[in-house]
Parts: sequence; structure tokens; C-alpha cells
Amino acid sequence: MAYLEKFGHGGDLLTARQLFQKDFSPLLDFSANINPLGPPPSVIELLKQQLESIVHYPDPAQRVLKQKLAEKYSVSPEQILIGNGAAECISLTILGLQPETVGVIYPCFSEYEQLARAFGAKIKPCNGREENDFKPDRLELFQLIAETDLVFVGHPNNPTGVTYSKAELIEMAEHAEKMNTYLVIDEAFIDFLPPEKQITLLEDLKRWKQVILVRSMTKFYAIPGLRLGYMVADPTMIVKLRAKQVTWSVNQMALMAGEAVLNEKEYEEATIALIEEQRSDVKRAIEQNLGWKVFPGQANFLLVRITTNITAADLQWRMGHKGILIRSCAMYQGLTDHDFRIAIRTGKENQCLIQALIEVSKEGNRS
Amino acid sequence: MAYLEKFGHGGDLLTARQLFQKDFSPLLDFSANINPLGPPPSVIELLKQQLESIVHYPDPAQRVLKQKLAEKYSVSPEQILIGNGAAECISLTILGLQPETVGVIYPCFSEYEQLARAFGAKIKPCNGREENDFKPDRLELFQLIAETDLVFVGHPNNPTGVTYSKAELIEMAEHAEKMNTYLVIDEAFIDFLPPEKQITLLEDLKRWKQVILVRSMTKFYAIPGLRLGYMVADPTMIVKLRAKQVTWSVNQMALMAGEAVLNEKEYEEATIALIEEQRSDVKRAIEQNLGWKVFPGQANFLLVRITTNITAADLQWRMGHKGILIRSCAMYQGLTDHDFRIAIRTGKENQCLIQALIEVSKEGNRS
Repeated sequence: MAYLEKFGHGGDLLTARQLFQKDFSPLLDFSANINPLGPPPSVIELLKQQLESIVHYPDPAQRVLKQKLAEKYSVSPEQILIGNGAAECISLTILGLQPETVGVIYPCFSEYEQLARAFGAKIKPCNGREENDFKPDRLELFQLIAETDLVFVGHPNNPTGVTYSKAELIEMAEHAEKMNTYLVIDEAFIDFLPPEKQITLLEDLKRWKQVILVRSMTKFYAIPGLRLGYMVADPTMIVKLRAKQVTWSVNQMALMAGEAVLNEKEYEEATIALIEEQRSDVKRAIEQNLGWKVFPGQANFLLVRITTNITAADLQWRMGHKGILIRSCAMYQGLTDHDFRIAIRTGKENQCLIQALIEVSKEGNRS
Repeated sequence: MAYLEKFGHGGDLLTARQLFQKDFSPLLDFSANINPLGPPPSVIELLKQQLESIVHYPDPAQRVLKQKLAEKYSVSPEQILIGNGAAECISLTILGLQPETVGVIYPCFSEYEQLARAFGAKIKPCNGREENDFKPDRLELFQLIAETDLVFVGHPNNPTGVTYSKAELIEMAEHAEKMNTYLVIDEAFIDFLPPEKQITLLEDLKRWKQVILVRSMTKFYAIPGLRLGYMVADPTMIVKLRAKQVTWSVNQMALMAGEAVLNEKEYEEATIALIEEQRSDVKRAIEQNLGWKVFPGQANFLLVRITTNITAADLQWRMGHKGILIRSCAMYQGLTDHDFRIAIRTGKENQCLIQALIEVSKEGNRS
């Protein structure tokens, strides 16, 4: 078993401290996929200046942020729902659409299955093909869409980082529309990709009533503590999902940050360039120095398979004691005890990671 | 109709600005029941210092705050669920317990009915008796508990401010237990009362499996922008409700603020003393200067009935143009077009309110 994912996810620093470090020396967190540049400094400054506004309720309709997002992405504000993190958006699709059967393509983000089960839906699984970078067989995917009420597709998928072509996405959307199945495309990590690789149905979304895009604003802008995500879909769908949302669900700090980050053009470009460069460096370093298998993900994280007899849980334990957190993927259906995920961070941090991985791999098995 | 409650609640400053004020001169907000002292300055300072921690996910299990609350109230952490505002806690009772029929005692907080309906429950109403300060008849309340799966009781109730005796509460709890009905007691405003008047079942809660207490931390500590509430109930109930909660639902700023405010003893005493003094001053001033009926509430707000022919909507409109927001109660079932609610604020602010009310009352009807 893994140690760090007590509550099902990476980025749990309190558990990490309890496990690995009693003092307050910094932990290097590769277990959560957050922009390594940290939040834009101007946004932190603005939040400090406007902190006193927490004395008021947040706008229950999130009007300003909705308008700004609508302008940025050339959609109407009525197509947007702002959520308390992408996690709330995903939850609202289940709550609002009440699917009896939910289609899940393994391996994927654990919340899809967990939320569907929590609200009484049956899970219909579809296993991604390892030889196809964990993308599902086309006919199996089509069958999944035909036989379920709602299908989740991660794009890029977590933890594999795999993406689909525009043609594949359109084909899925058309089939979902025909089969009357909701297609929820989770684009939580899409903004880490270079603009030309950000394959999305966003601009054509009006063609489909059944397609919902979910996005996160906390990963790319490094503000996961504030919780902010949104979804884009047909206005009638948005009305339906909004009816299930808790009033004032999105807090004032998240709204202020969300409004401010949309102006951060340079930060966006610097992030994308850093991730592109570092991801290929990290991939190469692991392959060359450790000989482990690195799957060809496109996002700000990489899925790695240890090809020696050390398990991901062991690796996590030993790395943790060096102050470095990685995400064991043993709990992902479709993956093995030897699979782990790492976020892509800055060059210097990535070098620390590689160095520590090399050291641990030389130590051999713990047990 | 009222103007300000476009989204069902007070405190909506964006709508207020659109309606009443295009410039940025300050609005005096009596429409939301927030501590007029503002957040404790030390807490604002701490949030500024620790703002950088938003780069990490909040603790998904809220362990530190849960422990601190457990110590303060002499309950176990397993009896506590931390929520994204009391609003999320209320929502979770419906989501987690799936009552078919929900009992509501009018007039009351509109979210009880709205959330119950949103998730498909039927509403069984019980009308508070005006001659009894809108408390329900004892036998009717007992019948309500017997005939429903879940009953909401505001304590003190919003918008009336009415409270129950300990004996009345125990009797309700015993009856709920016997009838296998969930009793959700909403104590969002209870901490504004002097300690000796804070009548609650908290210390005896282990006696009942069916009773849930909901509390807010944002009203008393004046941080509604951050969203923070909690509930206390039997540990098995908490496990059941937690299963329906969105992961990382409570943001990092709210957690940090929640942990910090619990040390604010002097602030708590000053707030309670201010509210006690000012509430009776405001009540007397309205009765003496306007001759309107002020209901005998115990909380940090008052329900007022205009006894002249001006409506609450008219009053709100005219007060709004003076930069003062009040809450029309026309939309509360069981109240009339002539009822409004005001928060209790500082002496100086309350004087502004009274002065403006006197001016408006002399102007006569708008239409």
C-alpha cells in the first residue's frame, strides 16, 4: 500500500509531515500537479491589499469572473458555471444529471468513480490499453458511451497525461449526442499545454447539448488552497447544475484571484515553456539514469513504471524521508504496484528529484 | 417585490451597487447579519502573512481546526464536520440523509426549503404563531416531527431571532429520537448571545443519534467571504455526511482563519456586549420614533413590521438610495409586505439607520 494517499490524493502535506518529517524543513512536493512557479506575485499582492473584502459575502452569482472568462474564451456567461474547485464541478455533474450508470476509462482521476458511487450510480469500466498509452480501444469507448448515461474523459488524462486528437474528440461528442449520453471532458490540466496542443471542443461547444467541459484554475495558477474551477456547457445544462450548487460556494478570495490571473499573459507563456522543456528533460533523465519506463504524457506530470523490483510504495517511503513527495499510483485501477506519478517542477527541483531517485534505486529493497 | 434579494439573500453588494450607487462611496449594509466590528485584526494580519500557503491544497480532512473545535466545545473530533459555510452543512444534511419529507417552520431561512426542493424532498410546512413570536404551537411542532423525515429548526431563528428554552429543545430531541426523524438545529447566530443565553444541546448531544447542530464561523467573526461552518452530530452520522462532501471543499484561507479566531476571547466578549446593548437601543429607537412593531428577537438582528402604509420594498428602495441596505422580508412565507430585517451594527451606524428610517417614513409612499 501507499503511505501518502490516506485521503485518496497527492499534495497532502500534513500527512507527509506526520509520516516523514517532524521538523519544518521544506518538503519538495512532486505529488500534486501544481505550477512550480507559484502564484503570480501580482496576484498575491492584490489579495493582500484586498483581504479586508472577506468581511462581505462573495457574489452568489460570480458575475465579474463569469464575464471575464466568457470574454477570454468567446463563450457566453450563461454557458459558464463557476465552482469551488474542479472537484465541485465534477460533483455537480453527478448531482445535477443523476446518471444511473457512469462510464469510467481506467486509469483515471479517482474522483470520477468515488463521486459516482457516493451518489448511487453504477460504474461501467473501460480499461485503457497499455500498448496505446492507456487510451481505450475506439469501439470499446463507443460502446461505453452507448451503454451509460454519463462518461468521464480526462483530457489530458490524469495520471497518464494522454491526449486525444480533435477528430477523436468530435467523434466522441457526436456519438454522445446521438446516444443521449453526457460526455464530461475534464480539462483540469489543459492550460499547461502549448496553445497549439490545447485540443478542446470549447470553440465548437454550441454544436452539442450533451458535452460538458470542466476546468481548474488552481493548478495552472498555483492557488489550490483557494479552490476555483469552472465548467462550460449548454446554458440549459448550466441552469440545471446551478440548482444543485450550494449558495456562496465559491469564496471571495478565489473570485478575486480568478479575476486577476486572467491578465497574466507573461506568466502563462513562461509556465508553458518551462513545463515543455522540463518534461522532456525529466523523461530523458529517468530513462537514461534509471532505465525505468516513462509513459509519453503531454501534461505537467509524468507517469513512470519502475522496472526493477522496488515498489512505488517503497519508493514513496524512501523519497519521503529525503523530503521529496511522489504520488504512488498503486491505487489506480489499471496500473501496477510499480507505477508512480511525478509533477514537473523547476529545473533545479527536478534535478533534486532525479538525484534522489538514483540514490534510492541503488539502495535496493527496504523489506 | 423586493429589489435587493435577486439571489434570495441579503449582503449582495454587487446588486446593491447596480441598483442604488454607481460610484464607490461606502454602502452601510444592514441586510447581512455580520459582526459590525469586522474580522479580528490579528486574524487579518495572520492571513496576510500566511497568504503564500494557498500554493498548497487545504488539508482534505481539516484535522487541525477539527481538533481545536473539539477542545473548545468538549466534543470528539469525530463528532465534527467542517463545511464550506453553514450553507454546505445544511445542504449535506439533505444530500446525506435523503429525507423524503422535510419539515419547515415558517418564517425561516429560505435555504431550508430551497435545498430540500432542489434535491427532490417534499416540504411539510408548519406556521409559527405570530402571537407567540412566530414559534410554532407545541402540538403542531410535535406532529411535524412525527410526520417528516427531517425537520429544520433555526435557533435563534432567522429572521425572527426567536429562541427556545432548554426544556423545549430537549423535548424536541427526545421526540425526534422516538419518531426516527432527523432534527437539524441551525445555530448559525447562537454565538452572538451572551454565554448564559446560548441555549444549546451541544453538551448533551451524545444522548441523541438523530440530532445535528449546524454552526457558522463567518457571521460572528465577520469573514463571510471565506466560507466556514461546521456541524456536530453522532460520529456515524458524520461519516455518512462526509461521504457526500466535495474533496477540499473548505479552502485554506477559511481553515487558517478558523484556527486563529478561536483564540479571540476579548473580541468575543466585546462583540456580545455590543450586540446586547445596541439591539435594545435600536428596538427602543424604532418603537419610540416610528411607532413600528419590533419583534423581540435575541440575535444580532431584528425583525420589524412597518405599521404605516409604506411597504418593505419601498423602504428598501429609498434606504438604498441613501446608501443603506436593509433586508425586505416580503419573500419569507408567514411574513408580510411590511416586514423587514436589520442587522445590529455599531452605535454610530445604528444612529445613521434610525435617522434614515425617520426621514423615509416622513416622505410617505413612493408610488
